[in-house]
Amino acid sequence: MRRSEIEGSYRDIQDRFCSALEALDGQSYFSTDRWDRPGGGGGVTRILIGSGHLEKAAVNFSAVFGSTPSGLSDSVAAGSSEFYATGVSIIVHPHNPNAPTFHANIRYFETDSGARWFGGGADLTPYYLFEEDAKHFHTVLREICDAHPVSDYGEWKSACDSYFYLPHRGEARGVGGLFFDHHATDLEAVWDFQQEFGTELVRAYLPILERRVDMAFGEAEKRWHEVRRGRYAEFNLVWDRGTRFGLETGGRVESILASLPPTARWEYVHEPPPGTRERVLLDMVRSEPRDWL
Amino acid sequence: MRRSEIEGSYRDIQDRFCSALEALDGQSYFSTDRWDRPGGGGGVTRILIGSGHLEKAAVNFSAVFGSTPSGLSDSVAAGSSEFYATGVSIIVHPHNPNAPTFHANIRYFETDSGARWFGGGADLTPYYLFEEDAKHFHTVLREICDAHPVSDYGEWKSACDSYFYLPHRGEARGVGGLFFDHHATDLEAVWDFQQEFGTELVRAYLPILERRVDMAFGEAEKRWHEVRRGRYAEFNLVWDRGTRFGLETGGRVESILASLPPTARWEYVHEPPPGTRERVLLDMVRSEPRDWL
Repeated sequence: MRRSEIEGSYRDIQDRFCSALEALDGQSYFSTDRWDRPGGGGGVTRILIGSGHLEKAAVNFSAVFGSTPSGLSDSVAAGSSEFYATGVSIIVHPHNPNAPTFHANIRYFETDSGARWFGGGADLTPYYLFEEDAKHFHTVLREICDAHPVSDYGEWKSACDSYFYLPHRGEARGVGGLFFDHHATDLEAVWDFQQEFGTELVRAYLPILERRVDMAFGEAEKRWHEVRRGRYAEFNLVWDRGTRFGLETGGRVESILASLPPTARWEYVHEPPPGTRERVLLDMVRSEPRDWL
Repeated sequence: MRRSEIEGSYRDIQDRFCSALEALDGQSYFSTDRWDRPGGGGGVTRILIGSGHLEKAAVNFSAVFGSTPSGLSDSVAAGSSEFYATGVSIIVHPHNPNAPTFHANIRYFETDSGARWFGGGADLTPYYLFEEDAKHFHTVLREICDAHPVSDYGEWKSACDSYFYLPHRGEARGVGGLFFDHHATDLEAVWDFQQEFGTELVRAYLPILERRVDMAFGEAEKRWHEVRRGRYAEFNLVWDRGTRFGLETGGRVESILASLPPTARWEYVHEPPPGTRERVLLDMVRSEPRDWL
């Protein structure tokens, strides 16, 4: 596969996901910001700010190239002087606390020293636990993996649990999903996997969204939502490698931080009482990762 | 000075500041959490969660000791195996967007390899700019510095501007204040300075708070308040060395993150129109640091 083919596929995935979200929301639409990167390349940031089912969604495409940044050259791009990176990242923050936040990313990277790899993943962050949602999400991910021998649901599911973890809280971010990185062998096979994975994200998430967005909730649920959104902000700002790399190397800040929740709240020692739905969620994220299938 | 003397003075500063805030608020009081650090020492975390003038305030004392953590031994504690650190940190998040957030810290550190130093500082973060507030704040800080030849208002003011800066936004956190660190010479003189500094924090901040807490504001101002509080969270989670060190070395998370704002909001490309009070604030934090005196 060539860069132009990858970029075309990524743009398709971006468009399809945005259209599917707009259809579900029914009243808000994505705006489009095209931007150039001073060092080379650029991107298309699509943002939906809504007053309906979706409070904030960001579906970002970028394809950037140029001199390898110094932070990068220490690790994956060792020995290179030029790099190229393209990817799509998706984040959806629904308004209803019963509807989970969704995040996904697919990416491709190469350097002039010959490195080439794919990475990506998807994970789900509920504020109230519906086991059937976690099961649906993992079932779709597992089906995609089963159709592509190059992938490994078990390993990538564990990698996701390890990555989306807040060590300072001793909490998982949510119910996990898939995570793979620096996949540099069987590139054609990974590329086939990634195309199906990108296309199937709609099927992995939207049915969950559909059955939660009309559920009743009140101020107490929204408050809990915002406390947990605080954890989401903590993960992205303190631990997420992509966010930190972007902020430290001068990426486009509004695109990088579009993943942050629209609102957040920090309450001192907020521990929900036993027997509440909030407690169930908290106990789950503080326990060992589950096999949802 | 001995450890017990420093700790006693720090506890006094903590108590006085809390009492002064309670008197001003008139309806909310600090709760007190004593905690032990597994590796040695502990602290007293005092938190006020209010529905009056103060939305959230945290005044924390700690005195910890033990084996030098690995993250620390690379830098300031090189060659040591045991460390001791004590300090007070103060953060005040008023409810009224016209009232600025206040932050201050004083600290003392020593190792068994003979290192001993003081550090500290205070800074003010307005959501709307009142130049007279910035001037009052810096006037008090300058007066304390002028009374103590060991201090250097000009240098420490510049250090504060450099430290409380968000490079990814190109924005200052606020109107600055004082910042000094690793002050290892003239220890008796710095100690004298620090005691007066700690005691005078009430005079530096509370008159500002008093004249702002009854000002009228509406939903639009509160929304702006929360957008700027998002910046505060970004600084603390991404850049603040103390917060990151604490989170990465397993400090007491609820005390470390007590500095975070009670609420925050992230809006995509939020740029207030020219001529508004919000624009004045934003232009100020995006400009070169001012001499407020």
